[in-house]
Amino acid sequence: MNGLMMDCPLVIPSILKRATRYFPEKEIVSRYEDESIHRSNYGQLHARVVRLMNVLRDLGIKPGDRVATFAWNHRRHLELYFAVPCLGAVLHTVNLRLHREQLRYIFNHAQDRVIFADRSLAGLLAGLKPELPAVERYILMDERGPEPADLPTPWVDYEQLMEAASDREEFPKFDENTAAGLCYTSGTTGEPKGVLYSHRSTYLHAICGCMVDTSAVSERETLLPVVPMFHVNAWGLPYSSALAGATQVFPGPLVLDRPLAELLEAERVTIAVGIPLIWNRLYQYLKENRHDLSRLHTLFVGGAAAPRTLIEGFAHDFGINVVQGWGMTETSPVGTVSRLKSAMSDWTETERLKVQVKQGVPVVTFETRILDENEQDLPWDGHHVGELVVQGPWVASAYYENPGADAAFTKDGWFRTGDMATMDERGYMQIADRKKDLIKRKGEWISSVDMENEALVHPGVLEAAVVGRPDEACDELPVLFFVTRNEFAATVEIEDIIALLGRKFARWQLPKPEDVRHVPTLPKTSVGKIDKKALRLLLPCPPLKAQTTCNAHSQAP
Amino acid sequence: MNGLMMDCPLVIPSILKRATRYFPEKEIVSRYEDESIHRSNYGQLHARVVRLMNVLRDLGIKPGDRVATFAWNHRRHLELYFAVPCLGAVLHTVNLRLHREQLRYIFNHAQDRVIFADRSLAGLLAGLKPELPAVERYILMDERGPEPADLPTPWVDYEQLMEAASDREEFPKFDENTAAGLCYTSGTTGEPKGVLYSHRSTYLHAICGCMVDTSAVSERETLLPVVPMFHVNAWGLPYSSALAGATQVFPGPLVLDRPLAELLEAERVTIAVGIPLIWNRLYQYLKENRHDLSRLHTLFVGGAAAPRTLIEGFAHDFGINVVQGWGMTETSPVGTVSRLKSAMSDWTETERLKVQVKQGVPVVTFETRILDENEQDLPWDGHHVGELVVQGPWVASAYYENPGADAAFTKDGWFRTGDMATMDERGYMQIADRKKDLIKRKGEWISSVDMENEALVHPGVLEAAVVGRPDEACDELPVLFFVTRNEFAATVEIEDIIALLGRKFARWQLPKPEDVRHVPTLPKTSVGKIDKKALRLLLPCPPLKAQTTCNAHSQAP
Repeated sequence: MNGLMMDCPLVIPSILKRATRYFPEKEIVSRYEDESIHRSNYGQLHARVVRLMNVLRDLGIKPGDRVATFAWNHRRHLELYFAVPCLGAVLHTVNLRLHREQLRYIFNHAQDRVIFADRSLAGLLAGLKPELPAVERYILMDERGPEPADLPTPWVDYEQLMEAASDREEFPKFDENTAAGLCYTSGTTGEPKGVLYSHRSTYLHAICGCMVDTSAVSERETLLPVVPMFHVNAWGLPYSSALAGATQVFPGPLVLDRPLAELLEAERVTIAVGIPLIWNRLYQYLKENRHDLSRLHTLFVGGAAAPRTLIEGFAHDFGINVVQGWGMTETSPVGTVSRLKSAMSDWTETERLKVQVKQGVPVVTFETRILDENEQDLPWDGHHVGELVVQGPWVASAYYENPGADAAFTKDGWFRTGDMATMDERGYMQIADRKKDLIKRKGEWISSVDMENEALVHPGVLEAAVVGRPDEACDELPVLFFVTRNEFAATVEIEDIIALLGRKFARWQLPKPEDVRHVPTLPKTSVGKIDKKALRLLLPCPPLKAQTTCNAHSQAP
Repeated sequence: MNGLMMDCPLVIPSILKRATRYFPEKEIVSRYEDESIHRSNYGQLHARVVRLMNVLRDLGIKPGDRVATFAWNHRRHLELYFAVPCLGAVLHTVNLRLHREQLRYIFNHAQDRVIFADRSLAGLLAGLKPELPAVERYILMDERGPEPADLPTPWVDYEQLMEAASDREEFPKFDENTAAGLCYTSGTTGEPKGVLYSHRSTYLHAICGCMVDTSAVSERETLLPVVPMFHVNAWGLPYSSALAGATQVFPGPLVLDRPLAELLEAERVTIAVGIPLIWNRLYQYLKENRHDLSRLHTLFVGGAAAPRTLIEGFAHDFGINVVQGWGMTETSPVGTVSRLKSAMSDWTETERLKVQVKQGVPVVTFETRILDENEQDLPWDGHHVGELVVQGPWVASAYYENPGADAAFTKDGWFRTGDMATMDERGYMQIADRKKDLIKRKGEWISSVDMENEALVHPGVLEAAVVGRPDEACDELPVLFFVTRNEFAATVEIEDIIALLGRKFARWQLPKPEDVRHVPTLPKTSVGKIDKKALRLLLPCPPLKAQTTCNAHSQAP
């Protein structure tokens, strides 16, 4: 027997309608590269989205067609966030930091018919044009700055198309399982893989962001996503913010140090969202420069584990709560959020920090397990490390047009994340490593994330990365790369770092002194994570081919 | 093209699983009629639900079967909230305050196979038994108190069945549109009508309750539903609380004055939920009796409009935020919540109160319109009064097994609420009246709710109700019934009340002095609303038959 409730689909047009109807005056602020500010609001957004839908219709875009964006965070990108899926087409946000080869692969694999690009970025596409036969139009968005010489031709101007388009409002109806968005993983191994989000998954994920114990987006907040809009839908915040009627501040390309701090201050931002690298830089900057960030109460951190020192520093020095989350392109992305439970308010700060460095409790609708090599469940004790597998209505069930990548999905409906993690008794998940980054030493695992966290406790260490180097036949040794803070560069001693690590790790786990290496910078991936694949190229020996076959012979100490 | 997200249904078993897995130690507190306290937690709840599912299986309950409850708010009722729908059966919560005839009709219409009743209430069912042929078993729940003489026989004891049942855990899988709950309207006209909730509607409604701008249920809250669990699922709070891991406090039958205040204090309740009547009584009680309710920050009010005086009183005297919502059995129930928008924080208290007395902004997924008599949309200006029609994934699309009641649903998919309301420019809805309670005077509408609100401004007036009495052929006159506060009884002057009303209403709208009537009490419906149908019986003249046909002749002044 079925219930007798209305069959109302959860679709993105409803999010826009809600923002328009109940919060028309709430602001959408964009800052351009020249630091000028543009102000609009949800009422204006609605009118422009209606017009942009007609632009897309005029371009012949049909339901299911892919429309690509190649842009920073700004109001026109937000217009596309709504207009494309509201038409039943698929918004494909492309990571502008990818290599030329990856871009070529992605545009062709997605068969994008149109690319909406920032004028300042379009030069990156010019040379690619002959290799992108499916692309019919290049539409340039940013009105600022000089005309670059090497644009793809023919190109058309966004605002000219908008002026020419009708303002007749017509929202088609469709099922909630209709595709809405497409995003490719920026994995460092193999070809990028596409994840195709639905209206239902996007809407549910947006609601989840407004729940008190997740991102707590509400009408009274002002959100600034530093995380790019090409990076898993800016973690869903543009949709959550519109649903709640929150003010949105888009920073454009300038997201480091002074320009970021000034924007946070001027727009009285309350919640900002980005990767650890950004907040680490901001913290350094704020230690030396005075800004009134009294309205800023929460920094959400994802993309990589937030070091304990970052959480401590912001809390102590600025009274700002750093909240970690975990997610992936394949999980829309938010899967866990690390908030303290009420009983922990009586704990000591040290005890609380041990929880805050974890990636947190799975969010509503999300299921997690950790599996050993034989696909058996491991206990939730905070110690057993296994592969994290997940399930939920905003988790991918397959990659887009990529049957060869099916191994990531179990037969009984779970996604293998490739992350090695623990779950503790209270349900907090902690990432130990990417599966391929975990270091096997004498048959036991060493978490590179743990070791990096410990190294960062040293006041002179700004960034740290640990990778394994082959040692004997079945074993690896940890190698620690570190970058020093300017003012401490001369005072950091390798022995001090090893001694610090020795407080947490057994002697046989510690790196040898020659494996603790001071470097001027660490290589980063296109989404700002430390690029361990690139770091491994700095190692003396290539990985041993026999390595994966000899677990049976290795012995734990 | 469909998205490639997992097909994970939104079902009630996931709510239980979440509470159990992440918040097993969070408490479920029940207070019995003898004021003794029982403490359990979500971990224990899970074990008991598994066992109760096996009890239901042993009784032969199959998916789709209706299982009735006839009980106050307590932990065993909560066990049924999960066990019945987790089995794929339908939880039918019956209003124990209904008349015998209505009970007979409802049990027979629903064809309940089993009734779970509180021992103290079972006597009400004893005489009905011969008239309920579909009911196979009566199961008595409350272990406290003496054995009443007139129980329905044969009956069985809840705990005996639990002891005999297996603890084998088996959760069947089903579609999210499967029926989960059944609740009958307690409308004062016609036969009660059943609303059949689905797992999807219940789950989405539960998530909505955890959003910051709705009920903001979170892990750190302690919730006390005064609203009965037989009244539209206690407004969904047991499910929202379990989803969030919030502490739940169930008050049993004692929800007035001292027992309520003591429970709020002892259990450090942070959010309590009920109808205006309850909070009005509590306010009076707290004015005269000292309790430490410093943890209580929010009282949610629904079921009837909260008077301005109640909102003001709690804010001024106790620092407690009274938040109104609006909903109906047909809307699961929450449809609107009245929270102030951030821009209103600069407003004067008087301006803010004008917003707070409204029923609020539609919640996520919820659509509203107000229609005139020709089904045309009226402007959202805060003045035009029309019938509120609504749409959303937790709104009924039909009544259960009742094709005769289809007129409540429009052909294009909206539910006619029967409430007359305004919507203002900011999207705040305000109920003017039930359609049948609105008073027509010289061709214009008078809102009885507005007039009651004004009368309650008089410090001597405790309760007020306005109904229309026929005057000339096409017109009605308002009649105001009021109850005085004890300490003011001697000092209330009819003229003063009329003068008060005169500040807001035109002279031709005011009641005549002989139509302002002091009464010792006001009649109430089974869910605690003022029973205007009963009040009309006190009026001198019967309604005129010709009344509805002569609108064309009447003139606005």
